[in-house]
Amino acid sequence: MQENIDKLLFTPGPLTTSSTVKQAMLRDQGSRDFEFLAVVRDIRQRLLGLAGVSSPDYEAIPVQGSGTFALESVLGSVIPPAGKILIAVNGAYGRRLVQIASALKIANAAIECEEDHPADPIEIERVLASDTTFTHAAVVHCETSTGIINPVREIGEAVRRHGPSYIVDAMSSFGGIPLNMSACGIDYLISSANKCIEGVPGFAFVLARRGALVSTAGFARSLSLDLLAQWKGLENDGQFRFTPPTHTLLAFHQALKELEEEGGVESRAARYRTNCEILLRGMRELGFEEYLRPELQGYIITSFRYPRDPQFKFETFYERLNEKGYVIYPGKTSKADCFRIGNIGHIFPDDIRHLLIAVRQTLNEMGVELSAATRSAG
Amino acid sequence: MQENIDKLLFTPGPLTTSSTVKQAMLRDQGSRDFEFLAVVRDIRQRLLGLAGVSSPDYEAIPVQGSGTFALESVLGSVIPPAGKILIAVNGAYGRRLVQIASALKIANAAIECEEDHPADPIEIERVLASDTTFTHAAVVHCETSTGIINPVREIGEAVRRHGPSYIVDAMSSFGGIPLNMSACGIDYLISSANKCIEGVPGFAFVLARRGALVSTAGFARSLSLDLLAQWKGLENDGQFRFTPPTHTLLAFHQALKELEEEGGVESRAARYRTNCEILLRGMRELGFEEYLRPELQGYIITSFRYPRDPQFKFETFYERLNEKGYVIYPGKTSKADCFRIGNIGHIFPDDIRHLLIAVRQTLNEMGVELSAATRSAG
Repeated sequence: MQENIDKLLFTPGPLTTSSTVKQAMLRDQGSRDFEFLAVVRDIRQRLLGLAGVSSPDYEAIPVQGSGTFALESVLGSVIPPAGKILIAVNGAYGRRLVQIASALKIANAAIECEEDHPADPIEIERVLASDTTFTHAAVVHCETSTGIINPVREIGEAVRRHGPSYIVDAMSSFGGIPLNMSACGIDYLISSANKCIEGVPGFAFVLARRGALVSTAGFARSLSLDLLAQWKGLENDGQFRFTPPTHTLLAFHQALKELEEEGGVESRAARYRTNCEILLRGMRELGFEEYLRPELQGYIITSFRYPRDPQFKFETFYERLNEKGYVIYPGKTSKADCFRIGNIGHIFPDDIRHLLIAVRQTLNEMGVELSAATRSAG
Repeated sequence: MQENIDKLLFTPGPLTTSSTVKQAMLRDQGSRDFEFLAVVRDIRQRLLGLAGVSSPDYEAIPVQGSGTFALESVLGSVIPPAGKILIAVNGAYGRRLVQIASALKIANAAIECEEDHPADPIEIERVLASDTTFTHAAVVHCETSTGIINPVREIGEAVRRHGPSYIVDAMSSFGGIPLNMSACGIDYLISSANKCIEGVPGFAFVLARRGALVSTAGFARSLSLDLLAQWKGLENDGQFRFTPPTHTLLAFHQALKELEEEGGVESRAARYRTNCEILLRGMRELGFEEYLRPELQGYIITSFRYPRDPQFKFETFYERLNEKGYVIYPGKTSKADCFRIGNIGHIFPDDIRHLLIAVRQTLNEMGVELSAATRSAG
């Protein structure tokens, strides 16, 4: 057994999972075996429950691969040949939606705003009012590249007033930030096994409003990523069309049970929020400065600016923390030098406190002067 | 711990894996962490070694998702917009290649032959000679729907004489049937983690001749399944472009080491062949008849005809074997009622002997008279 030798992952997924989630993978189940099919069925029901909805109005569809595969399965399967998508962009994951649409030769337009500003429902409404050819609109809920939270509910209201289908990339938020899919008017919500539900990577999933989904026949631009066919396959005999990652699904089932045991999304959100508060307080005490204004800062992941002190080299900082058993994440903003620390996963307040001690120690080793250094970082 | 409660999987993947392969998943590694990147690098090198080739002439590219995802990543990424593919079809997996090409709107033609006949190199050569617009040709090595082995080397020679790139779906054969990619003239070979290498499902992989691969810029019809971009990402910084199934890759690394410990592909092939021989002898003694003529029968998976005795109901037979801890597979032939038994996975001669005892017992329970019943099954 190789357990408990792992570093703690303060990354936005893959992340640290519980031992029991990993142990659920110590089984080989046949992908067509009734026991496994019961697991898949239960996973699909539980996912809908987390979004405050249920079948038959909504349907949960697991998709093999990473989150990007599920995003592509939605864009490539639900937008008609002559459709057009409006994408709100304020970070790398919004840009990725544009990339997907462009790779699939789907007509698209982006509403871009600065990475430290949330997507603006008023602007989105203005564009939808001025161009009525948009059949779909999409936004990222938690823009993991900075940690900013976009107002998916207000954007949903704007979209609903103009008719397009509404797609939300809730990759790093779903299961960690309470959200009611119906109340937000979301037609398609996408997330992944290895984020706030704290499973291991290997598949992602789409929650779809059935009324929207069933009207997409003939639109799919792919066999593997055909969302409607994937759903029909699961409905037909409970099986995946193509080999599912059976072990990953068993782990995910266990993770869903542990989420319920923790008290559901609200309780998990409370833990993540506490993690984040301890992190912010500690990092500020050390002299670090967040990239986002506090009122925009979500609790999923936090971007910190590099200190001004030239002694600070991110690579060294990263490696030394890594050697101490703490894995952080590089930044992903385009205009500021940042690194990121995730607050999600099987991580608890004491883990954050230990991380803060390691950060302080590492800064000392590197001879980085902080308190004064970042005061005016811009 | 939930180990050793599993049924044995006589299925062509997911299949039974060793305990140590599954235990390798008891770790959470960061997908950008240098330890994990070293694992990915070693996996890619070992895969090339199994095909008798090496970098930089050939490259190994893991692709998230099931085997079908990797097949689609090849067809969708390496065939130019005006390209055209000839596909040899003698079973469900050959037909799947046609489905993929059609879903991607890639011009294609199939050479179909009966499911109990191997693909014919002479016929393929004849078609390639008469229509010089084919840019690619593809065939399935072991047609898992029946277990028939197609002559990939002879087809490769035919293809080479006419110029198209040559794609081989070696999903259920790679690592279990010795094959030299270069000697067979294969440009792209596709297989999956959960077949003869005995890993768990979650990703597949493509082995590509570099000279062919690098000439495919701009052809990809997808972002997630862009083969060239996936390779460039791995070459650039050793990382996957999109979250890899880290645990599955750790399991696969362990599986590759265990394949080496077993003595490599030749030794594994010998074990599978022995499994198959014991199975065939035992099933024939019970009165079962194979679907394929012996000289066409591969040792990866065997299709058996349903007995004529009306007491035989496949569902009952399947369920009762399942209750005894043995999972077999339904048939996938279009013209004959068959079931299939796989000989691959972490399965040894004694497991086959136990399966045979369970089969005999189940037939007795069901009151199925066999010896005479199948003699004339057609």
